[in-house]
Amino acid sequence: MNTPFSLPPKVLAFDVFGTVVDWHSGIAREVQALRPAVDGDAFALAWRSGYQPAMRRVMSGELGWTLIDDLHRLILDGLVARFGLEDLSEAEMQHLNTAWHRLDPWPDVVQGLARLKTRHVICTLSNGNIGLLTHMAKHGGLPWDCILSAEVFRAYKPDPATYLGAAKVFGVDPERVMLVAAHQDDLAAARACGLQTAYIERPAEFGADNLKDVSPCPANTRHARDFLALAGQLGC
Amino acid sequence: MNTPFSLPPKVLAFDVFGTVVDWHSGIAREVQALRPAVDGDAFALAWRSGYQPAMRRVMSGELGWTLIDDLHRLILDGLVARFGLEDLSEAEMQHLNTAWHRLDPWPDVVQGLARLKTRHVICTLSNGNIGLLTHMAKHGGLPWDCILSAEVFRAYKPDPATYLGAAKVFGVDPERVMLVAAHQDDLAAARACGLQTAYIERPAEFGADNLKDVSPCPANTRHARDFLALAGQLGC
Repeated sequence: MNTPFSLPPKVLAFDVFGTVVDWHSGIAREVQALRPAVDGDAFALAWRSGYQPAMRRVMSGELGWTLIDDLHRLILDGLVARFGLEDLSEAEMQHLNTAWHRLDPWPDVVQGLARLKTRHVICTLSNGNIGLLTHMAKHGGLPWDCILSAEVFRAYKPDPATYLGAAKVFGVDPERVMLVAAHQDDLAAARACGLQTAYIERPAEFGADNLKDVSPCPANTRHARDFLALAGQLGC
Repeated sequence: MNTPFSLPPKVLAFDVFGTVVDWHSGIAREVQALRPAVDGDAFALAWRSGYQPAMRRVMSGELGWTLIDDLHRLILDGLVARFGLEDLSEAEMQHLNTAWHRLDPWPDVVQGLARLKTRHVICTLSNGNIGLLTHMAKHGGLPWDCILSAEVFRAYKPDPATYLGAAKVFGVDPERVMLVAAHQDDLAAARACGLQTAYIERPAEFGADNLKDVSPCPANTRHARDFLALAGQLGC
């Protein structure tokens, strides 16, 4: 763990859903605001679980290039019957679909990003579309230097085009970019492209009743409890 | 002038070179810092005048897709003999080429953007590449919500793909986007795509000795002396 690299990263590229924002409680809260009887926890988990399969349909060529806002709607439409949401109006469905734009950051995030920004370029590297990520940043006060998205590269993570694309955008070698994420698979894919990696513990990503394993993986450059701890490790 | 639109803009998309930052004095200063004998004014005008022809070579297909950083270098290489810069080292040439990353904003910009950001999404819509615009924002403290660039759309302004692309990214109709620029041709192209337009006076864009015409054009939605005046007009 915390393998020393010869050179510090110039760019910190952040995974967003789960790493920066708490999607589980945000989605649960928004569906319950519309229909209090719905099991918000189960609904949030079901919506999120449709995410990877939907992106695979795009990357396999079954679907054309599709923004995450539209994939979210596709998945949501498929959950209506199961969760008894048939009576939602189209306006309510559209509002619910943009709940992903209004997710709150974890408590350490705004202060942590402000510290990290003093010595690094900080950007998103998310499969979320640019508009979604911009609205989320305004909602949560996230001080990104730049919003990078799958939409820029027309490929979703873990496609190498995304990790290598981030390095290319800033004109640096891949080892000068550090991916910051709460997901070991995302970090492993970035590492395979030569990026540095930082794992962030988000034990309650799937809800407080469903804690996930946040054990360190020795292959990561850094392992930090949260963004404040990462800032401390990087001397910010 | 100041044609009333039924709906206020949601997104303000800003041209950057000349509108947000003072390229003329920045480029003149940087070349003179390296070689004091060079006529900084003439050098800045010559470098900038290569910009439109270089982009036309890309859009005509003569050159493949090229980032502005690379077009800037191409133009710079062509100016070396004329301005007696043959003795610059490769490191000095690279440093000079990134002078565009270090341009200072006009004095009203940071405060004006902060006010406009309170009620609108504020983003760049520039032919400059994402890395250049990100470094410039960090250098000048520009509080963009999002950095949009020709690089995202793989087309340079005035291609309609850029203006319409900005509306699409944020999921709004073109008339809810206002292009803010100090150039009537840029604004005319945006208007042809259905965007609102705001002209900003930057009389000294080409240097204090070479003042440009900043007369209002009645076709623009807004005409403002600077960003603070625009903020006032938009109630920010």
